[in-house]
Amino acid sequence: MKIAVDAMGGDFAPEMPVAGAIEAVSEYGVDIILVGNRDQILEHLKNRRYPENKISIIHASEVVLMDETPSIAIRKKKDSSIRKVIDLVRNKEADACVSAGHSGVMMATSLLLLGKLPNVDRPAIITAMPSLTGFFYMIDVGANVDCKPKNLVQFAYMGDAYFKAIFSGQVPKIALLSIGEEDTKGNELTKEAFKLLKKTDLNFIGNIEGKDIFSSAADLIVCDGFIGNIVLKVSEGLAETIMKLLRRELASKQVGKLGYLMIKSALKDFKRKTDYSEYGGAPLLGINGTSIVCHGRSTSIAIKNAIKVAIDIAQQRVHEKIAESLSKYEKLR
Amino acid sequence: MKIAVDAMGGDFAPEMPVAGAIEAVSEYGVDIILVGNRDQILEHLKNRRYPENKISIIHASEVVLMDETPSIAIRKKKDSSIRKVIDLVRNKEADACVSAGHSGVMMATSLLLLGKLPNVDRPAIITAMPSLTGFFYMIDVGANVDCKPKNLVQFAYMGDAYFKAIFSGQVPKIALLSIGEEDTKGNELTKEAFKLLKKTDLNFIGNIEGKDIFSSAADLIVCDGFIGNIVLKVSEGLAETIMKLLRRELASKQVGKLGYLMIKSALKDFKRKTDYSEYGGAPLLGINGTSIVCHGRSTSIAIKNAIKVAIDIAQQRVHEKIAESLSKYEKLR
Repeated sequence: MKIAVDAMGGDFAPEMPVAGAIEAVSEYGVDIILVGNRDQILEHLKNRRYPENKISIIHASEVVLMDETPSIAIRKKKDSSIRKVIDLVRNKEADACVSAGHSGVMMATSLLLLGKLPNVDRPAIITAMPSLTGFFYMIDVGANVDCKPKNLVQFAYMGDAYFKAIFSGQVPKIALLSIGEEDTKGNELTKEAFKLLKKTDLNFIGNIEGKDIFSSAADLIVCDGFIGNIVLKVSEGLAETIMKLLRRELASKQVGKLGYLMIKSALKDFKRKTDYSEYGGAPLLGINGTSIVCHGRSTSIAIKNAIKVAIDIAQQRVHEKIAESLSKYEKLR
Repeated sequence: MKIAVDAMGGDFAPEMPVAGAIEAVSEYGVDIILVGNRDQILEHLKNRRYPENKISIIHASEVVLMDETPSIAIRKKKDSSIRKVIDLVRNKEADACVSAGHSGVMMATSLLLLGKLPNVDRPAIITAMPSLTGFFYMIDVGANVDCKPKNLVQFAYMGDAYFKAIFSGQVPKIALLSIGEEDTKGNELTKEAFKLLKKTDLNFIGNIEGKDIFSSAADLIVCDGFIGNIVLKVSEGLAETIMKLLRRELASKQVGKLGYLMIKSALKDFKRKTDYSEYGGAPLLGINGTSIVCHGRSTSIAIKNAIKVAIDIAQQRVHEKIAESLSKYEKLR
């Protein structure tokens, strides 16, 4: 198993991608190709201990900047680290690629170079989010801003195949994000998608409201990418805000300061559990290859986690399973 | 100033609405009409001290249940407490009405009995949400699930007039909820609304991403009611989940338990600041009269806060100001 990692992607590149790659090699025994500026990568590899035969470097002379548009980056930066990791997957030189760089460019280039799976109209991004009892998945969190009901059904099938692959065949409870539990609640898109989902062989449990997504009632939540992205970002922003408010509240009270010291390790564990930048890998499902988008602020742990996700998807042949289930669905319709 | 309060609305009715009314009378000197089952209201009023001439009761023989649809409730429950508080506003016997009951029925009945303001296509619900430095407003949070760009512009004008009325003419920074700051980011609805908002005389600062809404960058955030409702509920659910996770994390550590006792009051203050059920009043703007929807789990403080919102709207003649600014906008277009 060989994973191509964009060493130049993310706010803490190349340090964190390189460190994450080293951790993944020791933990999972995977082979890694680090793609990016060779000198900078070597600088971060030196003085680190790792099995040298497991990490190789491919030089890329360009880096996609965060303010570039996908169309311009694709046209002008043919030698960018993002493009090169995807090219490695296309040329079967890597089983999957991982980048914490420009997510729009990563998505668009993956779609362009790897193509879509049969019966998929729109690829979608799936991500894990923390819940009361662990985590749940949400699809789509940003690939498609305007969706048709049929797209949401495809997202559900893609997420279902992914979940089963990751959790040894366990069937996920799938819910549709809406503003009320009843099938009559929602907007035009979700009301129509509800009807379609009811007719599938998926374990569709109905609508779920925003306040219940963290309750673990559903394992997989389906929504369009505009709402999914907003929900993801709102959750991230609120979790951070709550930590700041709590710290401020504690700092304003003498006994609070002492109490804060006493609960510091609990707070740290808690922060880790709710830290969105540690959730790492968000795979782009529905394309013909494994491409994992990471949070821009990815730490080495996040990169390592993303590499694990990439390994699972490739090993479990998630793409084949998505293609199979969508082909069955199309035949039954 | 006279406010009609639905004594039967909400999970803790009639206790909390009655208690909230008593608190509002002492704090704001307002007159209150409690509407609902007379015996039950009297039961909760007895043994309480309050100026008796300031609180009157109007009996309503019916209560709208939470699982009823607006169309059926409107058709069949002509003597419900919700309908009666709105009727009091229509007949100029009250300046505003407040209910923590079925929000869909409250909205639909308000629209039916009070009608829309001129130049308003769709009334919308505005609510305050906690932020790092206090709070911000969001409109619409649930009245309209499918919107046109023009509706969002009207929401912005309505929120603007409301904000100025509440904060002595202070001009709010208005942002459009989207998935990126650039004007090219968003779905069809927001991209078109962005263009329209740019042309208004509002203090429109552009798009805001989900992660930044709590940062106090914008005072008023505009979105369609489907997304607004989901964002509101997700925030509520996440804030609760984080408190639960934190408590569990602390309970699992011995020193954490002691620390928890020491920071208890800070946690309590913090919970109050982020408790959505205490934010109370969410006015339905764009209708010809003042109707305030409260959280189903409203405490007496939430009801009292909602009554304050009702007083402010009525005193500041928010409806007239909305009608004025929308009429100016229509002329300029």
